[in-house]
Amino acid sequence: MSNKCRRTKGLFNNSNSEEFITNLVKEIAATYDDEKGINHIDGNNLPNEYEVINIINHVMELIFPGYSEKKIYSKSLLVYNAGEITANLYVELYHQITRAMLYDLNEDCSQCELEEQALQSCQKVLSKLPKIREMMKADVIAAFDGDPAAKSLDEIILSYPGIKAIAIQRFAHELYHENIPFIPRMFTEYAHRLTGIDIHPGAHLGSGIFIDHGTGVVIGETARLGDNVKIYQGVTLGALSFPKDSCGKIIKGAKRHPTIENNVTIYSGATVLGNIVIGSGAIIGGNVWITDSVEPKAKITISSPELTIKTANKL
Amino acid sequence: MSNKCRRTKGLFNNSNSEEFITNLVKEIAATYDDEKGINHIDGNNLPNEYEVINIINHVMELIFPGYSEKKIYSKSLLVYNAGEITANLYVELYHQITRAMLYDLNEDCSQCELEEQALQSCQKVLSKLPKIREMMKADVIAAFDGDPAAKSLDEIILSYPGIKAIAIQRFAHELYHENIPFIPRMFTEYAHRLTGIDIHPGAHLGSGIFIDHGTGVVIGETARLGDNVKIYQGVTLGALSFPKDSCGKIIKGAKRHPTIENNVTIYSGATVLGNIVIGSGAIIGGNVWITDSVEPKAKITISSPELTIKTANKL
Amino acid sequence: MSNKCRRTKGLFNNSNSEEFITNLVKEIAATYDDEKGINHIDGNNLPNEYEVINIINHVMELIFPGYSEKKIYSKSLLVYNAGEITANLYVELYHQITRAMLYDLNEDCSQCELEEQALQSCQKVLSKLPKIREMMKADVIAAFDGDPAAKSLDEIILSYPGIKAIAIQRFAHELYHENIPFIPRMFTEYAHRLTGIDIHPGAHLGSGIFIDHGTGVVIGETARLGDNVKIYQGVTLGALSFPKDSCGKIIKGAKRHPTIENNVTIYSGATVLGNIVIGSGAIIGGNVWITDSVEPKAKITISSPELTIKTANKL
Repeated sequence: MSNKCRRTKGLFNNSNSEEFITNLVKEIAATYDDEKGINHIDGNNLPNEYEVINIINHVMELIFPGYSEKKIYSKSLLVYNAGEITANLYVELYHQITRAMLYDLNEDCSQCELEEQALQSCQKVLSKLPKIREMMKADVIAAFDGDPAAKSLDEIILSYPGIKAIAIQRFAHELYHENIPFIPRMFTEYAHRLTGIDIHPGAHLGSGIFIDHGTGVVIGETARLGDNVKIYQGVTLGALSFPKDSCGKIIKGAKRHPTIENNVTIYSGATVLGNIVIGSGAIIGGNVWITDSVEPKAKITISSPELTIKTANKL
Repeated sequence: MSNKCRRTKGLFNNSNSEEFITNLVKEIAATYDDEKGINHIDGNNLPNEYEVINIINHVMELIFPGYSEKKIYSKSLLVYNAGEITANLYVELYHQITRAMLYDLNEDCSQCELEEQALQSCQKVLSKLPKIREMMKADVIAAFDGDPAAKSLDEIILSYPGIKAIAIQRFAHELYHENIPFIPRMFTEYAHRLTGIDIHPGAHLGSGIFIDHGTGVVIGETARLGDNVKIYQGVTLGALSFPKDSCGKIIKGAKRHPTIENNVTIYSGATVLGNIVIGSGAIIGGNVWITDSVEPKAKITISSPELTIKTANKL
Repeated sequence: MSNKCRRTKGLFNNSNSEEFITNLVKEIAATYDDEKGINHIDGNNLPNEYEVINIINHVMELIFPGYSEKKIYSKSLLVYNAGEITANLYVELYHQITRAMLYDLNEDCSQCELEEQALQSCQKVLSKLPKIREMMKADVIAAFDGDPAAKSLDEIILSYPGIKAIAIQRFAHELYHENIPFIPRMFTEYAHRLTGIDIHPGAHLGSGIFIDHGTGVVIGETARLGDNVKIYQGVTLGALSFPKDSCGKIIKGAKRHPTIENNVTIYSGATVLGNIVIGSGAIIGGNVWITDSVEPKAKITISSPELTIKTANKL
């Protein structure tokens, strides 16, 4: 008998293991029992992370055909490839939307009505795919024009995290507009995990957006970006304070993030907070902290770099 | 014969491939031979990353039942679901702890004693799971109360990276207290990879911790957080300098990170360094750099935002 | 029939699903048709992400034997283990290099010449593995000496993201020098995804580099680091501006990132921009923003922390 077997056997023969596990399971189960809190039992209707990631991969394959999957594409067979992915995506997305909608199910709405609504939302969102493809072309070209290290459009699609985060957010944004619970945020959090770029599905992105490096970028729910906006790593487009109701409770959904007009560049580490407007063509320097609106074409930088320099002689 | 086959065949028929590989393997093997350094050969006792990630997934499934796995939960069958996961987790964790402890095996300690110690540590850590579940409930509620974009508790569990990072760290912290090598840090580094949030397993976290967005957050080994602490992306709770012994060697383990009291909020990009105290209810503004203790209820912000603004007319 | 089956069936029986999918596929296919843009059809020669990640895992297993894979290593059998991985790596890398080179295939170059060139590049890069192992030893020791939280060299290899990012970049750097398209950047972007550390494959790294925590670190294409350089989370070694040609087009590849000499330490959140030199032994404080060269052994910090402090009494 191998050493490993002996020990595993011993684990249950010569110890209190069975008793320990039995008691622990009872204790854990008891914490599941009290209230809803953080369980999800008897519900069986939450979207499943594994399935949602599958859907994201299918969406990405339709947007960037031939890049991620192992399948060989040829123009003549293209319609079959795209067709198979689209048909699968249709069924998968419909099921996850139905699960998500069941969660919020209103007593007055029958299961049939809900399924009809889920189907309509599913079709509405998928019908945006050709438009999203056009948007992504502009994003890829913006990255190529904006980065001296970029060697080709294909390299950008294969290896630029900003492109991945933006593509996933553009699709999630359509789901968000259909008021589907859970799934839009699961989409963008998956993008966040892959890229370090955290764009809320509610944010509106114009055309030709370039996010370089991207780690640490945060773009809030009610932010609006115009066309040809460039953003570097560590930039936050956040809320300054949260509007509260008369009871002091935070009002969900109120406009509280910046509007960034066309052709704005925001350098690394800048923080832009509140429901303000950064005028078209403005340049926001690195590490700048802004809570007031900025005129079009203005250039904001940190004044004198307030540094203390001790040279070797004075050390 | 396909084009690909021909090429692969040619790779070994018409070239120096065999000779090249043989020589390269010899050279690589020679670098394994000299000293211990960065090999791990003949040891066979290091914890395995794949197994450790499995353990993390099982822990998460017990803490948030029904969220991640595909299994269907129902209240009546719950005890079986939780029981199966717990039993597997028990065996897996025991084996990895044993492997980790073998690494530090003292000559005076027999294999049997070590296994007994591993079993006790394993049980001690697992017995904390019900308490960790209670803590996580408070964390999820803190996130809901603190974020206007949050739509439901379930959405937070499904898609908030902070919750994932905190849950994994809370379990890792129990392993850390048992002085188990490797595994605690492998836990939190996996959370870091998923979320960009790097909390050392040694850090003490109070109840109701909310980390929003989270990318770039670093919380050091000897940091202590009280209850209801809110932390935003890019915050560092770090060391200012490293205490050294009389030979100039860094002293491992000395208290060198901040203590954050109850109800403190630290906004994005703030850096809090050294063994200082941030008093209860204090608010640390974004991008602030602090190396001295702060009074309770104090509010620290960057003074005047020292910016240079060039408007379009003056450009 | 289960509820789920009925619904899936209904999806195609009682609705316009077929018609919808057919039309959508036509629309999507039409967007594939117009130009090259963001498709990759009929090419079949782009490197495949899945295969490239496989290659990275094999490289890591050769550099750190016994750490990641489940295989049991023993000194006497080592040559077989290393040999098998090396042989597989050789074939896999050759194929992906060939695919990448086909992309840039010049009309004057026959397929045979290209394959010969791919083979030479593949061998040249692999022959650097023993040297890379030596470099990584120095990196691991630098991490141990630099971090009071580090318990052992093995812990660093198992759980320090900086080590992973640097090892992958060192190999990618060799591919970069062979002018292989796509693959070097796919390597470092995979490291970026795992660690939040974004080091361009073009960057030159000296010996004994330590990147702690690492999330948000960006090191540009033409940066040069000497020996024993320490870098903390959120540090950018970036470009200040992009040299342009007479037509205003960005010149690809020009030196535009900093040179960091030996024994320099750069603390968290510092931004170092442009083709400048940070002299040997200099210390760059946290959050510092630098666009001018720095003398050897100089110590740069943010002057007075310009903070506004409101204590509880004055609130």
